[in-house]
Amino acid sequence: MSESDGAGHRRLIIAGSGIAGLTAAIYAGRSNNDPLVFEGDEPGGQLTLTTDVDNYPGFPEGISGPTLVNDMKAQARKFGAEIKNGVIENVDVEESSGPGHTFRVTLSSGAEYTSDAFIAASGASARTLGIPGEDELMGYGLSTCATCDGAFFRDEKIVVIGGGDAACEEAVFLTKFASTVHLVHRREEFRAEDYWIDRVMEKVDEGEIELELNREVTELHGTPEEGVDHVTMVHHPEGHPTDKLDDPDTEEYDFDAGAVFYAIGHTPNTSYLEGLDVEMDDEGYLETAGGDGGGQTATGVPGLFGAGDVVDYHYQQAITAGGMGCKAAIDADGYLEDLERERAAAEEPAAAESDD
Amino acid sequence: MSESDGAGHRRLIIAGSGIAGLTAAIYAGRSNNDPLVFEGDEPGGQLTLTTDVDNYPGFPEGISGPTLVNDMKAQARKFGAEIKNGVIENVDVEESSGPGHTFRVTLSSGAEYTSDAFIAASGASARTLGIPGEDELMGYGLSTCATCDGAFFRDEKIVVIGGGDAACEEAVFLTKFASTVHLVHRREEFRAEDYWIDRVMEKVDEGEIELELNREVTELHGTPEEGVDHVTMVHHPEGHPTDKLDDPDTEEYDFDAGAVFYAIGHTPNTSYLEGLDVEMDDEGYLETAGGDGGGQTATGVPGLFGAGDVVDYHYQQAITAGGMGCKAAIDADGYLEDLERERAAAEEPAAAESDD
Repeated sequence: MSESDGAGHRRLIIAGSGIAGLTAAIYAGRSNNDPLVFEGDEPGGQLTLTTDVDNYPGFPEGISGPTLVNDMKAQARKFGAEIKNGVIENVDVEESSGPGHTFRVTLSSGAEYTSDAFIAASGASARTLGIPGEDELMGYGLSTCATCDGAFFRDEKIVVIGGGDAACEEAVFLTKFASTVHLVHRREEFRAEDYWIDRVMEKVDEGEIELELNREVTELHGTPEEGVDHVTMVHHPEGHPTDKLDDPDTEEYDFDAGAVFYAIGHTPNTSYLEGLDVEMDDEGYLETAGGDGGGQTATGVPGLFGAGDVVDYHYQQAITAGGMGCKAAIDADGYLEDLERERAAAEEPAAAESDD
Repeated sequence: MSESDGAGHRRLIIAGSGIAGLTAAIYAGRSNNDPLVFEGDEPGGQLTLTTDVDNYPGFPEGISGPTLVNDMKAQARKFGAEIKNGVIENVDVEESSGPGHTFRVTLSSGAEYTSDAFIAASGASARTLGIPGEDELMGYGLSTCATCDGAFFRDEKIVVIGGGDAACEEAVFLTKFASTVHLVHRREEFRAEDYWIDRVMEKVDEGEIELELNREVTELHGTPEEGVDHVTMVHHPEGHPTDKLDDPDTEEYDFDAGAVFYAIGHTPNTSYLEGLDVEMDDEGYLETAGGDGGGQTATGVPGLFGAGDVVDYHYQQAITAGGMGCKAAIDADGYLEDLERERAAAEEPAAAESDD
């Protein structure tokens, strides 16, 4: 009996408890693959940040993000999935003498588990700037999710930081609540789609958005009790002011703000996979096989599958994450069935030999 | 004003009202693309044939297929989609002098509509044999869906026809209800996965399934009132008996049966697209771009997108169909946005010229 047959061994471990991970767990439970889900450090994933999910098909009246996630958890458990608190810190592959290999999964607590197959559904997390004031004020006036938190800042002066589609969309959305929205971008030109730039410019014409171009925020001021009070802003006429702090044309000043929203993109949560020989793009998104038949979610490491925002940098919807989670569970099931047959076949000649 | 601006013109037409088509309609409605959905000849798609959907994420207690489909219809309508009865018979592309082209959509009623973009979400239909008795008895003892209709035939002798995964799965499933299940296959060997063959052989050992190999059914006997009474069976020791009806080794006999289930695969509903220069595989499944960024559901015809079982011959789940429907709507939205910009740009120089 190998070490991997111990109590900590599972057929399948799933990283992440967002829509992709939970859908994979529902399907993997139904196909008797005894899945163990580690929730990660954002249990329930990004959808838990959303009050009203209107576009998940099947709920004509909408459903709250946390409710949808909890219902999926209940559904996954019903079919035999185990869902545990735990953040995966590292995944290694242990070669075995027979067919397949074993995934050795280490949690931040130090606990170790092994599995025959592994689904990475660990999602993506909002990027931050790493500036002073950030850690103290996150959740107290600083947010990475306009949809979740916008309504808390009615009639406030709101700063949105970013220059892409998400920044423009959030700025437009936040005009519903804000006295004015100030869109802070470090360059002159937005890299958002024209569609979003047009929407922003309409709001600029209406006096609801003000553009703060060639500017960056370098510090957030306030308290958890009172929220954000003001920010430190730097400006350089040619952009990227924080690269030019010693330049005489760079000016620094205080800027009043009642709330700050970061919209500077997401980073896929794949750093725990860096010990594996698995292909990622420059931003860390997992590369999967794609194509039109089975095995679409396979990575270059046999038995390792990817689903949801850890792979998808484009669509990023609940229903698309669910679709990929389902595919990953079906792909993992095919892999595990094959592995079982190969292992049985590898044992047979040995058994026959010992009969001689 | 061109002909295509008439009352019958839409930004987007969607073929099919299953999970893929309705999810596309929800997303397309939300992005103001004024979608018109034609329901096709199986409104609601294959899920309407399923009593209990246990694996669609978000419903821990399960949901009936028709309820889920109706809820999605309500959700699509809420966001502005129009859903009409109608079977699309043909789609043509009309080249225009400016950017893009127009899809001309002809219904079996003769009615014509035009659109700037088109999503094919017309699904796949169960194959039939085309033998005498089939048309009269379909739905009256003959079925293409064990999950839907199995429970109607408790303690009956049930014939299942086919040799693949679906046939094996349905045969095993139907042992719950049948006195015995007779699995009729025209060859000696099944082309199903070992997994399913093993499950079938267990049931054979338990006396619940009997294999009827190298046999084919050539006629169904019964009445809509009384259901199926018996079938005509042919047998040849080397298989494919209907190819060898004149062979002295071929025998024909009556075989008692209380119900017959076809499990001989599905055919994608793509014949209405044959006038277009769109790539399909040998079985008629639409080829889409795939890959890992935007435009995954694009076909070779600009503005034509594919989603659901019309593309997917492998996973074929409600949640995967929904994921693809969402992607198709987002891809179509990108196409329509680009088209609008190109058309606006093409009109500008003309307007400037006429000012000279």
